[in-house]
Amino acid sequence: MLPKDETWFTEVCEEAGSVVGWKVEKQLAHVETEFQTIDVYRTAHWGNLMVIDGFVMLTTRDNFLYHEMLTHPAMFSHPCPKTVAIIGGGDCGTLQQVLTHPEVESAVQCEIDEQVTRLAEQHFPELCERNDDPRATLVFDDGLAWIRNAEAGSLDVIIVDSTDPIGPAEGLFGPGFVADCFTALADGGILVQQSESPLLHQHLISGIRQNMEKAGFETIRTLGFPQPSYPSGWWSCTKARKHGILAPPDLDRFDASGIVTRYYNPEVHRGALATQMP
Amino acid sequence: MLPKDETWFTEVCEEAGSVVGWKVEKQLAHVETEFQTIDVYRTAHWGNLMVIDGFVMLTTRDNFLYHEMLTHPAMFSHPCPKTVAIIGGGDCGTLQQVLTHPEVESAVQCEIDEQVTRLAEQHFPELCERNDDPRATLVFDDGLAWIRNAEAGSLDVIIVDSTDPIGPAEGLFGPGFVADCFTALADGGILVQQSESPLLHQHLISGIRQNMEKAGFETIRTLGFPQPSYPSGWWSCTKARKHGILAPPDLDRFDASGIVTRYYNPEVHRGALATQMP
Repeated sequence: MLPKDETWFTEVCEEAGSVVGWKVEKQLAHVETEFQTIDVYRTAHWGNLMVIDGFVMLTTRDNFLYHEMLTHPAMFSHPCPKTVAIIGGGDCGTLQQVLTHPEVESAVQCEIDEQVTRLAEQHFPELCERNDDPRATLVFDDGLAWIRNAEAGSLDVIIVDSTDPIGPAEGLFGPGFVADCFTALADGGILVQQSESPLLHQHLISGIRQNMEKAGFETIRTLGFPQPSYPSGWWSCTKARKHGILAPPDLDRFDASGIVTRYYNPEVHRGALATQMP
Repeated sequence: MLPKDETWFTEVCEEAGSVVGWKVEKQLAHVETEFQTIDVYRTAHWGNLMVIDGFVMLTTRDNFLYHEMLTHPAMFSHPCPKTVAIIGGGDCGTLQQVLTHPEVESAVQCEIDEQVTRLAEQHFPELCERNDDPRATLVFDDGLAWIRNAEAGSLDVIIVDSTDPIGPAEGLFGPGFVADCFTALADGGILVQQSESPLLHQHLISGIRQNMEKAGFETIRTLGFPQPSYPSGWWSCTKARKHGILAPPDLDRFDASGIVTRYYNPEVHRGALATQMP
């Protein structure tokens, strides 16, 4: 059992009968918003930890894995991603990765809860370094409505960086939203959605893929990657392309981009594309 | 905190200030051997769980990731692995994977603690299905001595499937053992060693690589893969080849082998070879 003389934050994953946790030194924030409860802790070895409604969102130490893998496989599978929308992603870590791509002309982050971003600015400032980039627009509104109202064919890449499919994010896992994304995307456009654990949430992943198929997407792939702070430590995103294939970039394009990563590279991208559901 | 009306097994990773755990229904075994204490639990959702000296060894649900990734990248990087030694690996999961390779003529598993294998036969029978294969030999002895006494140049692949580098396995992470492995390997032979977490144990990985370099190995690569039941859920093995490169097999060879996997395939192998230390 956990040492009694220490303080731990633990998240139980009910459906898997598993738990993951961190030794915490101090609670830095506790905010109840219109949408959810947000807590931030300082941990002993993982930097800061943000928790929403009791579920871990990110830690300083390992969020690079998730943010790189949600962003770069989608961005590099598109020949020239100029217009990008991020739905959710209030911690700004995905926006930051998107803005490393020199082709980007416009990146809109539409997060329903402004407090997520305000707390990220305070406790994860390294993720918010590019928020003042003139190409970036931070919108605080309902992502479902934002996508529904987006001009048809106006987006090259849509990244759905959401919480779990309960609470405010539930609609982001529904067929209506995915169909609206299809409409908002330009020909050859790419939708990517965080899709939980390949080991624990195969039913959910299969539902996401069905929504994408029904919406008319031509190519659909689920990519696995390590993510220590989420249940099972093995996570995924599911990508869909309106028309065209989903392939990793050649090394020349990756090198020419000048983008510095800690996990992503074209070979890792290729390996992730070969993820099979166990 | 953990629900009080349930029983949990948790493993604290001291050096990382993190914890991982499972809801358990029943303790199935508790054995104190000459070397260590072994416990087996029945969990609610992960099948059975084996624990040695408080550290998780494997669960029924996710051990395929570790066993496939410790075995197949090494076996498929060798043109024709006929003679294989497994040092440790008493649960027989690695031996089982090795024996799926049709080229294998002899596979010796040298585990120091016979009770690990006896408990695996009882509680993880699906991993022990191939123990009666005429190509397999189960030895219960000190792996350090076994490798030291092996005929020079007699082995194609050595797989070090050990516990953490404390207790009985400590010597398996030392330079003397790695040098003895180099001697025991035939020209073009491959050594692979489980090498802990790329996120948490970079110092240890770097020590393993230095041992391999000092021993004279020409090519050294560290491969990352998901492993939910170990700290951080992101694990690695480090491979070294006496002479020659370490490349994934072409698809034809993999398909012709007829080997059925749940995680490994040549593209995943290629992606794992591109693991960079974060």
